[in-house]
Amino acid sequence: MNILNNKFIINLDIDGGDNAPISVLRGAELYLTANQNVKFVLYGRRHIIEKYIKNLPLLIKSSNIINCEGVIDGNLKPTEAMKKKFRNSSLAKSISSLKNHPLEATVSSGNTGAMMAYSKIFLRTIENISRPAIASLLPSKNHPVCFLDLGANSECDEKNLFDFAIMGSIYYEILFPNSHPKVSLLNIGSEELKGNTTIQKTHEILKNTKFINYNGFIEANEITNTENHVIVTDGFTGNIAIKTAEGISKFITETLKKHLLSNLFSKFFTFFLKSYLKSFKDSIDPRNFNGGILLGIDGIVIKSHGNADDYAFCNAIGFAVKCLENNLLKRIKDNAK
Amino acid sequence: MNILNNKFIINLDIDGGDNAPISVLRGAELYLTANQNVKFVLYGRRHIIEKYIKNLPLLIKSSNIINCEGVIDGNLKPTEAMKKKFRNSSLAKSISSLKNHPLEATVSSGNTGAMMAYSKIFLRTIENISRPAIASLLPSKNHPVCFLDLGANSECDEKNLFDFAIMGSIYYEILFPNSHPKVSLLNIGSEELKGNTTIQKTHEILKNTKFINYNGFIEANEITNTENHVIVTDGFTGNIAIKTAEGISKFITETLKKHLLSNLFSKFFTFFLKSYLKSFKDSIDPRNFNGGILLGIDGIVIKSHGNADDYAFCNAIGFAVKCLENNLLKRIKDNAK
Repeated sequence: MNILNNKFIINLDIDGGDNAPISVLRGAELYLTANQNVKFVLYGRRHIIEKYIKNLPLLIKSSNIINCEGVIDGNLKPTEAMKKKFRNSSLAKSISSLKNHPLEATVSSGNTGAMMAYSKIFLRTIENISRPAIASLLPSKNHPVCFLDLGANSECDEKNLFDFAIMGSIYYEILFPNSHPKVSLLNIGSEELKGNTTIQKTHEILKNTKFINYNGFIEANEITNTENHVIVTDGFTGNIAIKTAEGISKFITETLKKHLLSNLFSKFFTFFLKSYLKSFKDSIDPRNFNGGILLGIDGIVIKSHGNADDYAFCNAIGFAVKCLENNLLKRIKDNAK
Repeated sequence: MNILNNKFIINLDIDGGDNAPISVLRGAELYLTANQNVKFVLYGRRHIIEKYIKNLPLLIKSSNIINCEGVIDGNLKPTEAMKKKFRNSSLAKSISSLKNHPLEATVSSGNTGAMMAYSKIFLRTIENISRPAIASLLPSKNHPVCFLDLGANSECDEKNLFDFAIMGSIYYEILFPNSHPKVSLLNIGSEELKGNTTIQKTHEILKNTKFINYNGFIEANEITNTENHVIVTDGFTGNIAIKTAEGISKFITETLKKHLLSNLFSKFFTFFLKSYLKSFKDSIDPRNFNGGILLGIDGIVIKSHGNADDYAFCNAIGFAVKCLENNLLKRIKDNAK
């Protein structure tokens, strides 16, 4: 536990995301309604925070404000975001604050590229980890799966993928204790000889690594129906898979809605239907899985989805706390030797 | 039009696919109920064809049988499938029959790798096309999109991707005349500098190619909601995207079904619901898009999905006929110079 009144410290980037600052602040308030184990440090423009925090009594009681200047837009390129004028932004300061404070964590719905760039500069990559990766949970039939890399590294070699396998495995065990996660490598076929050279080399390394519960190749159509817990791929492929999934989900649910509302009779039933569709929507609700982690960075940095609402942001905070409670960084360091 | 009574000749691999031979034969019968422009040549074991064709009067009238031996399993590796004992299989013979018969086409639900391998050996790749690709239509919000390569080439260079762009564009125009297809390159961001070196190089070439209506990068979440008509990527990425889409679609529709049937009240409404859900299912039904094409092969070879039913297989035949009617091969040859 951290020092501030025996509570964990969670730094929040108040200016990050499409629904900032409201969803960030309300998400923190929502977290506090069920948990008393954290203190928040709110990084953002003081006058804006003070304006929006008024109706959030729990957060007022459990937070400090650090005034920041300059807002990094979600579409800004990392090279632009690193310029001097953004060094006092909420994104930059909430990340730099983690330096030498291994028992704090930062949550932001801001610019992913900028988050990774600032994390690398301020916090550095953990020793013996070749590159950090972005990992996130996805819904699947049997249990959630941890999928990485989601886009931090568009070209990866076997050492990178091997590191991702280690880190993904540790992260999964922290979120789901005693799960003994099965780790698999995303490929275009499940036969031994499929895939490119890097995948083949990684496969050989993982087969011979005793402390990883390696389970071979997985094809992309099995991500949502698998016995595996961790799925490893390069950032290019991972980004394509996650965005395809996002696009298809939206397409199907929108088409469904359109067809159900297309005639009078089904409109009449819509009222009744809604409650049944709600349980369906809940079970695949991406908000329940909101919160990617920058694994391999020497600090706990959680990337919330850019359009996260209160509920989704609250979940991202939950991931940050789990990582602190279970010493994620120490466990990665111990295994990356 | 081809020679046999002024009709196109479509060669069918009767032994290919999970539902062979029934769905192949019934799919052809279904096609004949609405079209009189083809004659079928049925490649398979004669005694099996004769057994199952009995109740299909149109097909009996419009087909010849070529007896074959040996069946290539869907899971057989291409190297195995190429062995001498399979040279008289329905898959091999239905493809080799295209040689020197540019006005015929072959449709098979069989082993994709074996189809590509036999096509390359018997029919060869079109001159000046670096590599063949597998292309297929996908449902999307505004209009279907043609997506390639779906998995023929796990590593591609800029010349390969450039060829895919040309061929995809021609194929789309054949399926949808006067569509002036917009061609895009799949990437992990829409900004100019995103992606790996190959994608960057291809982007530069396509920007400077006048006879392709190139429209820049597309992200994977836009595949189902785009103004573009043709989406080009390497076979590894394409395979990941298409299989992710397949997995997610299945996951969502199964979850939906489970939730709608989970309580008495909604069970009661299921009867009414079914007709509304049917129109939804129809609009995203992959069977309507069944039929990938081996673009770049000097012969029209259509790959039907392994689990295609009658209706889906009938659609694949339709694609084959469209390619013949509109001189696909000649148009690719004219543009590949």
